Amino acid sequence: MAEIEIDGALIERYVHDLAQHGKFGETGVWRTVYSPEWAAARDEIAGWMRDAGLEVRHDAVGNVWGQVQGADGGKSIVTGSHFDSQRPGGRFDGVLGIIAGVAAVRALIEQAGRPRRTIEVVALCEEESSRFPTAGFWGSRAVTGGINPGDVDTVVDWDGVTIAQAMRKVGLDPARASEATRGDIDVFVELHIEQGPLLEQQGLPVAVISAITGIRTYIIELTGTANHAGAFPMDLRRDPMAGAAEIITGVINTAHRMGRPAVTTVGRIQAEPGGPAIVPDKVTFFVDARHPDPNKREELYARHEALMSEVAERRGLELKLTIRSQHAPCICDPELVRLFEQAGNELGLRFTTMTSGAVHDTQQMARIARVVMIFVQSKDGRSHTPEEFTSIEHATDGTRLVAAGLHKLAY
Amino acid sequence: MAEIEIDGALIERYVHDLAQHGKFGETGVWRTVYSPEWAAARDEIAGWMRDAGLEVRHDAVGNVWGQVQGADGGKSIVTGSHFDSQRPGGRFDGVLGIIAGVAAVRALIEQAGRPRRTIEVVALCEEESSRFPTAGFWGSRAVTGGINPGDVDTVVDWDGVTIAQAMRKVGLDPARASEATRGDIDVFVELHIEQGPLLEQQGLPVAVISAITGIRTYIIELTGTANHAGAFPMDLRRDPMAGAAEIITGVINTAHRMGRPAVTTVGRIQAEPGGPAIVPDKVTFFVDARHPDPNKREELYARHEALMSEVAERRGLELKLTIRSQHAPCICDPELVRLFEQAGNELGLRFTTMTSGAVHDTQQMARIARVVMIFVQSKDGRSHTPEEFTSIEHATDGTRLVAAGLHKLAY
Repeated sequence: MAEIEIDGALIERYVHDLAQHGKFGETGVWRTVYSPEWAAARDEIAGWMRDAGLEVRHDAVGNVWGQVQGADGGKSIVTGSHFDSQRPGGRFDGVLGIIAGVAAVRALIEQAGRPRRTIEVVALCEEESSRFPTAGFWGSRAVTGGINPGDVDTVVDWDGVTIAQAMRKVGLDPARASEATRGDIDVFVELHIEQGPLLEQQGLPVAVISAITGIRTYIIELTGTANHAGAFPMDLRRDPMAGAAEIITGVINTAHRMGRPAVTTVGRIQAEPGGPAIVPDKVTFFVDARHPDPNKREELYARHEALMSEVAERRGLELKLTIRSQHAPCICDPELVRLFEQAGNELGLRFTTMTSGAVHDTQQMARIARVVMIFVQSKDGRSHTPEEFTSIEHATDGTRLVAAGLHKLAY
Repeated sequence: MAEIEIDGALIERYVHDLAQHGKFGETGVWRTVYSPEWAAARDEIAGWMRDAGLEVRHDAVGNVWGQVQGADGGKSIVTGSHFDSQRPGGRFDGVLGIIAGVAAVRALIEQAGRPRRTIEVVALCEEESSRFPTAGFWGSRAVTGGINPGDVDTVVDWDGVTIAQAMRKVGLDPARASEATRGDIDVFVELHIEQGPLLEQQGLPVAVISAITGIRTYIIELTGTANHAGAFPMDLRRDPMAGAAEIITGVINTAHRMGRPAVTTVGRIQAEPGGPAIVPDKVTFFVDARHPDPNKREELYARHEALMSEVAERRGLELKLTIRSQHAPCICDPELVRLFEQAGNELGLRFTTMTSGAVHDTQQMARIARVVMIFVQSKDGRSHTPEEFTSIEHATDGTRLVAAGLHKLAY
């Protein structure tokens, strides 16, 4: 294999320049979809693509596509990720997959010439749900036919602005959103920061991802009876806080005992009426439970739900269990996993093959293409914060792996 | 003993008329201290006192005192309670103790003439902390020397108004607040609704109270590390929600197993940053723990604190434990308890002797006087809500007991 050389300084410059659009403090980024800083980032990325020799196209929802036409034509091999951020997020989540894609394809064209098959780099407009709580994966959903005609008017931001209004503000016609759908993508490769601590702990720069977790988020409402905290004996209470605490302890223990990569998290909780001296009549909390193995995932959910019912019944509480969102696990294409593992070995990279506990655009793209992901090391496993950090050295290693894989696929 | 007859229709009229000042919906009351509706209630009560033949005096913080001078002079025997309400509260909490006092003393004067010892009925201006979060027991604290000179400027309501400003608005001079202090009270008797279910369950109209609970409210802050809910394995987390749930389960179980009247309540909790898919870095919650027995109370607190430390240490969490407020248990005067028990027996009342799980003005008054309380049945144990209810029949029974006790003490 002729190794494709990747320019670390270019990656460093891309990271630096893109972080100026929505700069937040020293190292943070606040760049929500369809904002002025988002539009500036979009234009910056389009410029990189043109410089790299790619043909640039903006689609109906604001995704940016840079294409190099293959000599044989046929379906495309696509790499990329999203360029919106959390509020605030860091300089790497999402955008590093675009930067790696542009840098890899630029190097491929320069060093290996025109490919046999068509390669595209995509900068997806939205993934984080950080402005529109129900937009999540807006860019990749548009590409895969996952946006329904009415969605542009029902997806609303924290200030009451519909996504249709926001799209018009950056020159997009919301009525045409469905035109972003693609039916001609064969492969989607996404490089992303790990957002967890495992690569750092193992001292590895990169990983090939074999599966992306299945996730289910429950909203649990437990209802009992509000009473005076002093005058009402413990044995007569119907206390939803006691039930909530028992359920939270139980679901966290269940995931812990099931072992990696099972995870269950309770990140939000509220007691009503909320007085320190009142037994609450209602406690509402979120349970986020994940496993990439379809069978173990079902086992995890079944155990969680059995515990919730048992505790509520034993304590005389009303249980309302709502599934707020779920994503099925996404098994990466085994042939692509093997191909990227082979490329990693040929490059002499130290890497592992693991599963992703976070959800990604790749999960959407899997509906219309074969998929695989590459992770690069995250410092302290942190993300969704200005402190998230990935070294340029590791980012460059990841980009070399993307380039080597694309070379195997397209040349 | 010559039984003093109590006019149930008068009590019913008092309940009805007072509930007009700050009327909230059909059966609720919203009457916070120093509001216009509070001032109207104050004037209404002063009118009842004058009608009953009492000499009326308004003190420096707005407490209303109605006195019948005893032939022998000496220290006073006082009965009463507070006339502010929760937001909203009901028609009985607090005011029923004033109504019983006025009705009892009116009947005593009419049926037994001038007493040997001086009797006073007091309508205390504030107990609920419902307008000024740190005012709590403002009326009884003023009487017992519990207000410091600076307090009138640092006690601030939800809208930023100081209690000094609010006092001026109803014609009171905040600089004179300390003049409300009394040093000439021998006995304080407070009738109050139970706010719990025990009398209803036992089918009893009234109870004599032998002790008022000791209470300590903790603010517990557990700090760990915020992480991605998917990408961070369970075994590497420092999850304060896991610690909080374990502590809440533990403290509730401890109080439950210790048995009545131990109670521990967690009514408020918050996770930060609060995203459903983020392991929180901080969970803050309130623990309200009560016991009327000084030794058992210490045991309850020691067990709670040991558990908090053990869980935090084992889970690698930072624990910040703040005691937000506490009241020592208040042991009612054994001689007064016996006297009211004897009066109850002589009246042929069905009653029990029990402890109070709620705190009351009586706890303040105990600093300067011998105290005792009378409880009357609460429907479904409810209070601090428009649905709180006590039947006129039970309120009348309670008033008969107050009158009989005062007769024994003052005639």
